[in-house]
Amino acid sequence: MDKDTVKKIKSVVGSEYVLESPEERICYSYDGTARRGIPALVVLPGNAREVAEIVRLANEKGFPIFPRGAGTGLSGGSVPAEQGLAMVLSRMNRILEISRDDLLAVVEPGVVTGRLHRAVEKEGLFYPPDPSSLQTCTIGGNVAENAGGPRAFKYGVTRDYVLGLEVVTPTGEIINTGGRTVKNVTGYDLTGLLTGSEGTLGIITRITLRLVPKPRAVQTALAVYNRVEDAASTVTAMIRRGIIPATLELMDRITIRCVENYLRLGLPMDAGAILLIEVDGLPAQVAEEMKLVEDACRQNSCRALQTATDAAERERLWKARRAVSTAIVQIKPTKISEDATVPRSKIPEMVERLKSIGEKYGLHLPVFGHAGDGNLHPNILVDKRDPVEMEKAEKAVQEIFRAALDLGGTLSGEHGVGLLKKPYLEWEAGAGGIEYMKAIKKAVDPRNVLNPGKIFQV
Amino acid sequence: MDKDTVKKIKSVVGSEYVLESPEERICYSYDGTARRGIPALVVLPGNAREVAEIVRLANEKGFPIFPRGAGTGLSGGSVPAEQGLAMVLSRMNRILEISRDDLLAVVEPGVVTGRLHRAVEKEGLFYPPDPSSLQTCTIGGNVAENAGGPRAFKYGVTRDYVLGLEVVTPTGEIINTGGRTVKNVTGYDLTGLLTGSEGTLGIITRITLRLVPKPRAVQTALAVYNRVEDAASTVTAMIRRGIIPATLELMDRITIRCVENYLRLGLPMDAGAILLIEVDGLPAQVAEEMKLVEDACRQNSCRALQTATDAAERERLWKARRAVSTAIVQIKPTKISEDATVPRSKIPEMVERLKSIGEKYGLHLPVFGHAGDGNLHPNILVDKRDPVEMEKAEKAVQEIFRAALDLGGTLSGEHGVGLLKKPYLEWEAGAGGIEYMKAIKKAVDPRNVLNPGKIFQV
Ligand SMILES: Cc1cc2nc3c(=O)[nH]c(=O)nc-3n(C[C@H](O)[C@H](O)[C@H](O)COP(=O)(O)OP(=O)(O)OC[C@H]3O[C@@H](n4cnc5c(N)ncnc54)[C@H](O)[C@@H]3O)c2cc1C
Ligand SMILES: Cc1cc2nc3c(=O)[nH]c(=O)nc-3n(C[C@H](O)[C@H](O)[C@H](O)COP(=O)(O)OP(=O)(O)OC[C@H]3O[C@@H](n4cnc5c(N)ncnc54)[C@H](O)[C@@H]3O)c2cc1C
Repeated sequence: MDKDTVKKIKSVVGSEYVLESPEERICYSYDGTARRGIPALVVLPGNAREVAEIVRLANEKGFPIFPRGAGTGLSGGSVPAEQGLAMVLSRMNRILEISRDDLLAVVEPGVVTGRLHRAVEKEGLFYPPDPSSLQTCTIGGNVAENAGGPRAFKYGVTRDYVLGLEVVTPTGEIINTGGRTVKNVTGYDLTGLLTGSEGTLGIITRITLRLVPKPRAVQTALAVYNRVEDAASTVTAMIRRGIIPATLELMDRITIRCVENYLRLGLPMDAGAILLIEVDGLPAQVAEEMKLVEDACRQNSCRALQTATDAAERERLWKARRAVSTAIVQIKPTKISEDATVPRSKIPEMVERLKSIGEKYGLHLPVFGHAGDGNLHPNILVDKRDPVEMEKAEKAVQEIFRAALDLGGTLSGEHGVGLLKKPYLEWEAGAGGIEYMKAIKKAVDPRNVLNPGKIFQV
Repeated sequence: MDKDTVKKIKSVVGSEYVLESPEERICYSYDGTARRGIPALVVLPGNAREVAEIVRLANEKGFPIFPRGAGTGLSGGSVPAEQGLAMVLSRMNRILEISRDDLLAVVEPGVVTGRLHRAVEKEGLFYPPDPSSLQTCTIGGNVAENAGGPRAFKYGVTRDYVLGLEVVTPTGEIINTGGRTVKNVTGYDLTGLLTGSEGTLGIITRITLRLVPKPRAVQTALAVYNRVEDAASTVTAMIRRGIIPATLELMDRITIRCVENYLRLGLPMDAGAILLIEVDGLPAQVAEEMKLVEDACRQNSCRALQTATDAAERERLWKARRAVSTAIVQIKPTKISEDATVPRSKIPEMVERLKSIGEKYGLHLPVFGHAGDGNLHPNILVDKRDPVEMEKAEKAVQEIFRAALDLGGTLSGEHGVGLLKKPYLEWEAGAGGIEYMKAIKKAVDPRNVLNPGKIFQV
């Protein structure tokens, strides 16, 4: 980037918010994947006007901008793919409004998700989306990725909570989409289109989020099975009883063993699967639902069932699930986290296929995830310094994608395409689908300024 | 349309599905508004391939296509605006699949919404979106308009239930968007973009809909108030108690009087407002919620409260609400139905503003609608043969839009822009927002073949 451009950028945001040294720039070169790319410059704008000015400058001078929240993404979305400017939105982190009567919050994109949770819960409100990275990731990143999380089965994903956006378009206009009402059909649903667009169609500078009343009661159960099929049929049985639990997390045999080796919680090493089930709502409702949940577990060969109503007991049951990410990297240092998702009736078949894929390539492949919505997380454990193993892993990933699509599923339930799934997008979207997406990208970003090289090559 | 083109179209769909006579064409010239436009030709394709062939022909020959479901739209969306081809999707009306385990249905666009309701309820499932036109309107029209309905407060709108689409693009490609899973972030959310695009970005030929388990119990209450403000604070009080009723319908004083004059149900002619409240779920949950609902009503100066648990009693309470549309046209023959929506805390202010607007222009302006989500239906009653009155009505409509936007709301909660709200779109979306939308339209429909003249002029 030429000196003159850097000077202009400094005059827009103030020089203390422009990082130039290699040490500083390296801090913004990565995300939650193994991909790396060092940006030419790092800029932390303070408001939408500043963002817009830099975007206009980028159009003029022809440099790319890579929007970034906390860099926890799992598909390479915020990794600078070419020499360009990393635009970090973390400074814009004010919670501007929380309305109990209109059930909404207005926030800047840099607000950390967990902080929003605490702030709204203090008001008796609830923001359901809960990506497991919530203590670090930002709402802006969640919107850009349409993040999910364990509570999505009952409550849906980020998109279901975005009412309106302020966005800086790829040509540097500030526009507002949606608004403060749940219903809004005035023109195209740009709010929906921007949500999940991975920083390629606009930079999100303000977000109006729908909230719900905080559930008054929560109960948790942990059910142990000999066979993963029985865990899966428990899910079906609950649905048939009219129950949609808030959370329905599955851990397979390899995952259970990893966690037990790591934490010694007393988990049964010979179990085929564990389900962690949580129901929430009004007290009588929760009691009624939990009874039906227990029924469903027992009638589907659950071999042990623990339940918890108070916070301490619940925390104990959650402990195993929360430890998974850390526990599995005890086997091998590099974790390739996939999020291929299948219709929930196909979970047993998918788990079976994942097992065969792991065996075929001689790879450790623990499977856990959100059973309620078929969003499994097969994790391939490797050592990235071993090129032979890495090659096997890449082949295994391809087979995982094929399996998910064969079973009527999708490449990505919540992590997005970014750089990692780009080569496979066509398998799912088809040539026509990609053409449609590219036409949109080209139309709104004619100079290909925003996050170029992500999702697809235009 | 030249003879050669008509011949080609006949060879694609079969001549029995091409209507040419003026009498037949007039049947497809209208929708639920007062707008009219007689198409040059009416075509009823039988499958996506036929749709695609006709769209490709339209691109080649340069004639516009106006997609149409049942023609119940309230913004002029399916009215042919220029000489062109009305493409009616009603023949494609098969329910292809209902899956209890995956909680989904796959349907063709011509399925009438009420028929889908009955079919899935037979399987113990539930498709929540319930536009009041459900006995006539089609799912394809619902998706194209992103239709709402009374149950939207708890359950959301059509978009919240569309998992995937098969679409014929404006250039005649058949693409598939989304899929069979609730979570899917593979590429842009074209499913969301197409939903609510009013037939301008693609013709929907197949729809995968998310279903939920059918609620086991339902209870209904009818609460009468002296003042509309008290009805509104009841809504707030319920939310503060953590209750989101399935339905929360409001009728104002004028509406109550119209209905009472029409049906003699014994409604209090001096009441300021009536709320119709419905809660659903598991039996204990419903009982618990209804107790809290009654509390909220009583503590907010409700002067009479009736409740119903069995179907016959519930039907009696619903009678007044269902009669509204018919009752109000007793005053004047022409009904201009608006759907301006405000954040729910602004309902009392909006009702106040609507009253003044009615008085200012000397117009009858009953207000009813979905109080839970702030989606009011102010209806202006006029006689379309009276040009002076019609001019007043148009001015009143403008003031209604201004009021909704002033209060942080939207021009349209569920009816869409179509032809009627086109002049006002910029008030809400802004010049930049419209440019963004137009860029998308131009990019995917370069020859402006699909529903030209709707939403905006490109
Ligand atoms: C341990 C761990 C657990 C995780 N668990 C989950 C989970 O349960 N569910 C889930 O969905 N994800 C999960 N993730 C993935 C990740 O946390 C999410 O994708 C999250 O939404 C990323 O937020 P971020 O702020 O870190 O964004 P980044 O990683 O910085 O960026 C992500 C994408 O968003 C874009 N972006 C960021 N901010 C903006 C903005 N303001 N405007 C426009 N574009 C922007 C970037 O360009 C990039 O394409 C997990 C990650 C880790 C490391
Ligand atoms: C008495 C009455 C009550 C109503 N109540 C409600 C209500 O409670 N909530 C609500 O939201 N609406 C309501 N409406 C409005 C209307 O019923 C809805 O907008 C409905 O979704 C229209 O469906 P349709 O099949 O009649 O579509 P049409 O009116 O034929 O078309 C509507 C739009 O959809 C497009 N379209 C239709 N089919 C397709 C397709 N397959 N692919 C692409 N585009 C297509 C058309 O081009 C047009 O732009 C009501 C209408 C009436 C008359």
